[in-house]
Amino acid sequence: MRQITLKDIASKLNISVTAVSKALKGYSDVSKSTRDSVIAMAEELHYTPNSVAVNLRTQQTKTIGIIIPSIVHQFFSKVLSGIIEEAEKKGYLVFTLQSNESIALEKKQIDLLLNKRVDGILMSLATENNDISHLQKVIDNKTPLVLFDKISKIINCSKVVIDDRESAYNAVTHLIKSGCKKISHFRGPLNPQNSIDRYLGYRKALEDNQIKYDPSLVYTCEAVTFEEGYEFAKKLYGQHKDIDGIFAVADLVAVGAIAYFNEIGVKIPNQISIIGFSNWFIGSVISPSLSTVDQPGYKMGKKALKLLFKEMNPKKKGEEFIPKTIVLPTEIIKRNSTLN
Amino acid sequence: MRQITLKDIASKLNISVTAVSKALKGYSDVSKSTRDSVIAMAEELHYTPNSVAVNLRTQQTKTIGIIIPSIVHQFFSKVLSGIIEEAEKKGYLVFTLQSNESIALEKKQIDLLLNKRVDGILMSLATENNDISHLQKVIDNKTPLVLFDKISKIINCSKVVIDDRESAYNAVTHLIKSGCKKISHFRGPLNPQNSIDRYLGYRKALEDNQIKYDPSLVYTCEAVTFEEGYEFAKKLYGQHKDIDGIFAVADLVAVGAIAYFNEIGVKIPNQISIIGFSNWFIGSVISPSLSTVDQPGYKMGKKALKLLFKEMNPKKKGEEFIPKTIVLPTEIIKRNSTLN
Repeated sequence: MRQITLKDIASKLNISVTAVSKALKGYSDVSKSTRDSVIAMAEELHYTPNSVAVNLRTQQTKTIGIIIPSIVHQFFSKVLSGIIEEAEKKGYLVFTLQSNESIALEKKQIDLLLNKRVDGILMSLATENNDISHLQKVIDNKTPLVLFDKISKIINCSKVVIDDRESAYNAVTHLIKSGCKKISHFRGPLNPQNSIDRYLGYRKALEDNQIKYDPSLVYTCEAVTFEEGYEFAKKLYGQHKDIDGIFAVADLVAVGAIAYFNEIGVKIPNQISIIGFSNWFIGSVISPSLSTVDQPGYKMGKKALKLLFKEMNPKKKGEEFIPKTIVLPTEIIKRNSTLN
Repeated sequence: MRQITLKDIASKLNISVTAVSKALKGYSDVSKSTRDSVIAMAEELHYTPNSVAVNLRTQQTKTIGIIIPSIVHQFFSKVLSGIIEEAEKKGYLVFTLQSNESIALEKKQIDLLLNKRVDGILMSLATENNDISHLQKVIDNKTPLVLFDKISKIINCSKVVIDDRESAYNAVTHLIKSGCKKISHFRGPLNPQNSIDRYLGYRKALEDNQIKYDPSLVYTCEAVTFEEGYEFAKKLYGQHKDIDGIFAVADLVAVGAIAYFNEIGVKIPNQISIIGFSNWFIGSVISPSLSTVDQPGYKMGKKALKLLFKEMNPKKKGEEFIPKTIVLPTEIIKRNSTLN
């Protein structure tokens, strides 16, 4: 993989390396004819400036790293897409890594990224995350760090999130206002903050509407899958024939529940209303189409990157930087799986 | 973003930089006690070896670049996921870029990647791609290049593809064997090779089964969307009430067609059978579930990366390298949108 250097251009044109360098930088003490021939030769030889060498001088690599639990996941792929587009506009390239929800992998990936001297790291944490020593390592290393969506409250860095509790509250309130009186929650795993917050929002909405909380109506989705939605709908309906509303922690789970009720001929939304969370494409094309909470993935990616850029300058100069948390608004999307 | 260097470790321990360097490399002329204290100090200071500097010596960056038309796309996100996992196992990091189907963006992205001295580039081309000068630039630059899925036949580099023509042939043959006599094709745009090949496979299957080709049964999806599938199903059924089969260039298009027929009460598969292409998750959860061609995205990513690695060594040594094309097998997934 031999790379063309300034020396190659210089020897082809029989001029000095300094002259070539100055010509490419557009310095005025090089004649226009020399400059033109240098540029022509650089193009002919497919010369590209060696940014790997450049960054040793500027102490910048113009790269950032992102670690997400999964790439084949509509929400995270939207966030990733937002980050990459925004980064590219500023001349940054993005290393993408997926943790597969493994904290051991996250730790390795942090080392790889620090090793590459990335100018910053963006992360959404693995579900099993209790240990934050690797995040602390990034901060101790003075590398800017921004968490988004799946965050840890105990780490002191910038964050971009939605208000999961309020969004869940709004979703359940929508069910109640449309007439539901006995509402089940298919919740997420016990650990991640966003799954806890959605559960708390569900409880608060019940409480504020004088509906008694019944723990037997809450099912925990360990993997947040279509299959869990299907199975829990079956169990729930087996035990509570009078159930009239379900709030699912994610659209996939809700779609699984819809599939079960379609199969056994239970009418949605007339008999049971269902609302999901995240606004995946799939919810808009199934039948009945799924009401849900729109979670702005693309925007979240862009905001997270902007926060990261803001942190780079103070950190480089050794100035103090006060982490910031941005809460993005969500919106209830009313479709045909709920009444009104 | 001050980085810890060997010098920091040396001065803390009051030994030479050479001793620190040798200790970290495990050289035998450093005592075990020195080595242990160097490692302990390196850990305490969060030292990470500066791979940015290392690569100036080895002429390797241990990075590769990937350019795909879109990240929020189930097939490409699977490919990306396969590439990243495989790369990581070999200690490589992946720069991810999306062209948004724009050739102008592809050109810029190639420059960015060459500029970063990536050890290789993986690409699936933008649909509008007629110009391949930027691909030629990669090859002239002696940077390994592997194309996958959306390729250009005229560029001489390694490729990983499926046999789109044969796969389409098999899909249409499945419709014919299950009794369809009047089969429509919702094809992809006119340019990309895979969309051309799927169309040719459709024609060949008709021909081999003595079904006359009727151009009025072919609709061109410019953007390959759900909406196009819906609209063309409407047009098709308006003009040809006796249509009994549809082969769609992609699952999304097929799902759009199913949505239309569900809406107007046309029975699938009894009245009209529908088969898609690619095996997106969505096809498995809609009703009726969609028969399709399974396109192995994850495997394609892994294979493409393996080909790229194979090309790195000969290129580095200046040896000749003969590009290779790998054709991955596909499989018909029979679900409930077709008979039998």
